[in-house]
Order: sequence, then structure tokens, then C-alpha cells
Amino acid sequence: MHASLKQYLDGKIMLSPADEEYVDCKFKPRSTKRNEILVEKGDTARHIYFVVKGCLRVFLISDAGNESTRFLIFEGRMGTAFPSFINQRASVAAVQSIEASEILMLSHSDRELLLKNILGWERMERVGIEQDYIASIERIESFLSMDAKDRYAILLRKSPEIVKRLPAKIVADYLGISQETLSRLKAKN
Amino acid sequence: MHASLKQYLDGKIMLSPADEEYVDCKFKPRSTKRNEILVEKGDTARHIYFVVKGCLRVFLISDAGNESTRFLIFEGRMGTAFPSFINQRASVAAVQSIEASEILMLSHSDRELLLKNILGWERMERVGIEQDYIASIERIESFLSMDAKDRYAILLRKSPEIVKRLPAKIVADYLGISQETLSRLKAKN
Repeated sequence: MHASLKQYLDGKIMLSPADEEYVDCKFKPRSTKRNEILVEKGDTARHIYFVVKGCLRVFLISDAGNESTRFLIFEGRMGTAFPSFINQRASVAAVQSIEASEILMLSHSDRELLLKNILGWERMERVGIEQDYIASIERIESFLSMDAKDRYAILLRKSPEIVKRLPAKIVADYLGISQETLSRLKAKN
Repeated sequence: MHASLKQYLDGKIMLSPADEEYVDCKFKPRSTKRNEILVEKGDTARHIYFVVKGCLRVFLISDAGNESTRFLIFEGRMGTAFPSFINQRASVAAVQSIEASEILMLSHSDRELLLKNILGWERMERVGIEQDYIASIERIESFLSMDAKDRYAILLRKSPEIVKRLPAKIVADYLGISQETLSRLKAKN
């Protein structure tokens, strides 16, 4: 089994050697280039992605061409254009590899097979989605009740890799603030 | 089994008569008064609530005393201060019954028993939480990429009961806009 995937699953689920092999063969490796688009807006997201190396971005594009970053998927994490993948409908968001990346792709139908055939997969997914949902609730809270300064301070504490590693433009639109405001906040910290 | 709960579970899970009885006895009925607080900010949410009649509100209170409505739970739906309930930690949000309500309460430990003992409960919860997570992603999208007018139009289309039934103050803070902006939008529609 791919070492990063094994590390991800360790502690979340107990797999027999046969199960490990079955799981491993469902995740298809792929290398992506910097800025490569994996899911276009309007397409259906056919896969969920596990990031071995690099970083993926899920983002919105307005009719005027403005982008807003909804979600970032770093090494050792899984993600996709979730509403599109789960309900197999056209995606509002696009998915892009913002660095040259190594990913493992699990298709929608293979995920159904894992849910059906691997004891404990359902539980692992339920627990994982609970925590993803909690993270999104906390992000909604930050939009409802915090200003740009507080949102930046929390991002710096919870996900410093976003601030350190990504272009200012992406950090700013992830926070829903302008690049000028971000520069001012960075200068103060 | 309570008729509303039976209706909620129909189509989501197949239960034997014995299972039905087991599930039913885990949901404890309670009547609440208008504006009664069920979970205080800083408490741990011990229950998830199924609303038979009425409406619950999950909301934030800033240090300055300003409220923002994070989530509304209407008849036939379940909800709570989710991050607090799932991780059994102090809640950032409070839960209030904004109308006199009839609710059924499932405790954290009884939920664990249902997950363990009722075949299909895990799957039902996983599928339910996926859809709740999708709804929260769509709300994040609305904050990232829409103005007040678009957010109001979508609320009117997706959840007209929120606009019709609740006080303007709650509708406005659910949308993250002022009451004045809401009045202007209502006048135009």
C-alpha cells in the first residue's frame, strides 16, 4: 500500500492484509502540473483526491472572472468538489493543482465499493465528515462574527502553512479580504 | 414510535419492530417555552434535538452582546450545537427555542448506542451529515461570492419559511446583513 495512504489510514481503521491490497488498488496514482485543472466548473467531480505531495485548491469563479478559494487540500488530506462528488451533479466550484502534485484518485463507484465491502470504512468516513463539517461550521462562524484581523489571526494559528506557502492572492481570497488588507495585517504580525 | 420521528426515519433506514422500540425509547420528549435556552454558550451540548413542532436556533453572541444566527432547525429536522455535541467540548454557540416547541432529545451516549446496535444507523448518519456538510459549503460559497441581494434571493428560494416565519432581526443576522438592508430587499421583492 502507498506509504502516505497507509499513514492516513493508521489509527482510523484496522485492515487485514487482503483489505489493504483491495483498498490500495482503488486509489489510482496521478502526477499533476502546477495550475493544472482537475475539475472544471460545470463538470461533475468523478473522484475524491488524496494528496501525497503538493496542494489542491477548490475555488469559485464569478461571471466577472473573480476567483474565491473555498477549500485547500494539503499533503496527507483528502478532498474534492464535495457537493458535486457526493451528489454526482455539475460542480459550482473548480479543482486545481496549485503546485506540481502527486495524488491518489478514488472514483465515486470505487468509494461505494469500499463503503460496502470494507468493514469499518463507513464509520471512518462518518467520523471524518463530521470533522470536516465542524471545520466548515467554524468557517461560517468566522464570516458571521469576525473581522478581517480576527480571521487572519485564527488562520495563522490553525493553518500557518496556508499563510507561509501560498501566494498572497490565494490567502486573501480564502479569507474573503483584499490583498491590500492582507498586506497590512501581515505587516502588523 | 413517535409519529414525526417515524416519518423522519422512513425511507432512510429499515427498522424491525424491536429496533423501532429501542430507537424510540432513546429519544426523550420535552416541551420548551418561547425563547428558552437549551444550551448556554460555554456549556457542552449533551443532546441532539429532533423538532416535532416549533423551531430551534443555534446562535453566536459576541463579547459586545451582538447575536448572529448560525443555524435554524425546523419541524422534522435534527440539529444541535454540532461541534460541541460531537467533540463533547464547551460550545461557542448557544441553542434556543425561538417558539414554544415540542422536541425529542437524543443524548450523546444514547447516540453511540444507536450507532453500535442498530444496523444501518451509521450509514444513515453518514449520508445525513454529508448533506448537512454540503449545505454548509453552499453557505460558505454565498459569503465568499455573493452580495446581500443574491443571498436573500437564494434564501427566499431554498428556505422561504425562514423569511416568512421568523422575526426580521433573525433573518437579517442569518444572512449576515443589517435589518435596514433586509427591509430594502424585502420591499423590492
